[in-house]
Amino acid sequence: MSTANSLLEAFKKTKYQVSGHGKRDIQILKSALQELDGQQESDVYGKGQIIEDFQVKMAKYLGKDTAVFFPSGTMAQQIALRIWCDKKGLKKVAYHPLCHLEIHEEDGLKELHHIETVLLANQSRLIELEDVLSMEEEVACILLELPQREIGGQLPDIKTIEEISKYCRKKGIKLHLDGARLFEILPYYQKSAAEICSLFDSVYISFYKGIGGIAGAILAGDKEFTEESKVWKRRHGGDLISLYPYIVSADFYFNKRSSKMEQYYKDAKELAELFNSCHSVSTMPIKPVSNMFHVHFHAPKVQMEPLLLEIYEVTGVGLTGYLNEVTEESCSYEVSIGDQYATFPKERLKEVMQLLDMKIKEMKHLNS
Amino acid sequence: MSTANSLLEAFKKTKYQVSGHGKRDIQILKSALQELDGQQESDVYGKGQIIEDFQVKMAKYLGKDTAVFFPSGTMAQQIALRIWCDKKGLKKVAYHPLCHLEIHEEDGLKELHHIETVLLANQSRLIELEDVLSMEEEVACILLELPQREIGGQLPDIKTIEEISKYCRKKGIKLHLDGARLFEILPYYQKSAAEICSLFDSVYISFYKGIGGIAGAILAGDKEFTEESKVWKRRHGGDLISLYPYIVSADFYFNKRSSKMEQYYKDAKELAELFNSCHSVSTMPIKPVSNMFHVHFHAPKVQMEPLLLEIYEVTGVGLTGYLNEVTEESCSYEVSIGDQYATFPKERLKEVMQLLDMKIKEMKHLNS
Repeated sequence: MSTANSLLEAFKKTKYQVSGHGKRDIQILKSALQELDGQQESDVYGKGQIIEDFQVKMAKYLGKDTAVFFPSGTMAQQIALRIWCDKKGLKKVAYHPLCHLEIHEEDGLKELHHIETVLLANQSRLIELEDVLSMEEEVACILLELPQREIGGQLPDIKTIEEISKYCRKKGIKLHLDGARLFEILPYYQKSAAEICSLFDSVYISFYKGIGGIAGAILAGDKEFTEESKVWKRRHGGDLISLYPYIVSADFYFNKRSSKMEQYYKDAKELAELFNSCHSVSTMPIKPVSNMFHVHFHAPKVQMEPLLLEIYEVTGVGLTGYLNEVTEESCSYEVSIGDQYATFPKERLKEVMQLLDMKIKEMKHLNS
Repeated sequence: MSTANSLLEAFKKTKYQVSGHGKRDIQILKSALQELDGQQESDVYGKGQIIEDFQVKMAKYLGKDTAVFFPSGTMAQQIALRIWCDKKGLKKVAYHPLCHLEIHEEDGLKELHHIETVLLANQSRLIELEDVLSMEEEVACILLELPQREIGGQLPDIKTIEEISKYCRKKGIKLHLDGARLFEILPYYQKSAAEICSLFDSVYISFYKGIGGIAGAILAGDKEFTEESKVWKRRHGGDLISLYPYIVSADFYFNKRSSKMEQYYKDAKELAELFNSCHSVSTMPIKPVSNMFHVHFHAPKVQMEPLLLEIYEVTGVGLTGYLNEVTEESCSYEVSIGDQYATFPKERLKEVMQLLDMKIKEMKHLNS
């Protein structure tokens, strides 16, 4: 077995895991169903109380006219951009170079919808107003992802979003929110979801990140937009006869966790501070602005893997199941704080950090 | 409330319902999960034991190298046709005018994949060998749907399929099976699924028709084909982080019902005979070849609705929740036999049929 696989296996066996809500096992679904009346009727091709009620609830939460439940964000967002492109008669959109659609969807937007993309900003920083103002090509829509996940979950200040929104409205450019982690950023902005969403024409949210559901997404906007999205949902093969397994779990965990984002955010700041006090470890961002951040080890992946393995064995605490190589001399992984963090003795965490600090120092000493 | 809505409401309230497996309620999922260990891990983006084991099981059942689980048949079939088109470098396929892709998918195949279609046979009959032989245009793939649902679930004889298959292989045309109801036709052909599928290059099956699961589909074929289908699944937004709610229920109800298709088929023939003995009622086909058939009333929909309503009230037996207008003078609905039929006293059914016969005669008498 490679060390990479060993790290994942060892991580899974640890008693305490620092991030997340716990194992993604079938119990997640069983718990969501437990209290529900078995006689409740299934949704049928997008109709029925179980789906319609949840759509109304989410539309209200997001401050939009209407909302549609989708099996995935990949589907929902391609469709959102397609609708805005068709409306303008221009198949071009702009987004960040590390946008989910650009790097995780096998180019679905281009292969299925033939939409061209303009990349704003660069791989190491956020989109700023200046990037939008200096864009030379005309586009139908700009997608903003809040937080920008692939750079550690960074956020622009609210003024930047307001100015981009204002500019887009003036120029007839639609503004779409990739809000996969929208819940998670509300404590930082100290705003409601509806207040953030009011700056956007359309918004997508996910139920298996901070909310910890099973899968599924909501796409929200005005009625004309969401009605058209239903037609595309059917074309994509997403208009399933029954989506309720995802809907009931989305609703259950939304009710359970949407009010806990403030705590996750505080926990993330606390944990990042602990990491930043260790030798050759830093977090991106230094001070998190949501429940997430990236941990960067300024040491080679091949050396960090056995080091982490040893820490897991000694302490029973798991930090991560994988490491991404950033350069030959550094590696990183993502932290998303969830329910696990609170279940966990703080002394244990300090012990882990002291050990991490000490072992990296030792390693660096041996290397030099 | 319109009579149409009343018919559905009255149908839902009946004690006995002649077709189907019973209500599509949350209990379907709860029952499938009941015996499962909550600690079983979720699939993660198409990987993990829960999805891989089921895919292997279905590949074996279908006699294909590999199989991929999809959230829907709409997605799976568009992708199958796209792969065959790309392989040949020709964006054209042939199928029946009442093919699911032609009439139920908002033209996804054309809008997303830009694939042209050639329609074989016509709306009132099956595709025969002659239709294939006389096709003037070159196509990459032919889709056959067994049974042809929209004309009552008719089937060609096995020799026709064998000859079409042989011809397609000779000509380098791929043959794809829309096997949404494949389980249901095996008793008629007295063949295994693998024997039928050996005549096709790719096959899709569904888990919420005769099997009575919640949603989901399998697409099977050779390894090159299924690997490519996974890339398109991601592009379509169908590569969900977790598909297990559909997989565990597909597996549960496959185990429960795949061996019961012979019984459903016998029941369908029995029930069709009862209908055909009533005045101005006929079934399509006259003698079913699977668990399904269409019931045609040679009387106007507006007259049949209140007549059925009355029968439901008197007997407590529900036949259908809707009627489709065929002409001004006739209407129809679909029957799919499932577990319900056996739960149900036969005398009750005869009573219903006598009443139906009598009431239609009365109505016809009054009309004339």
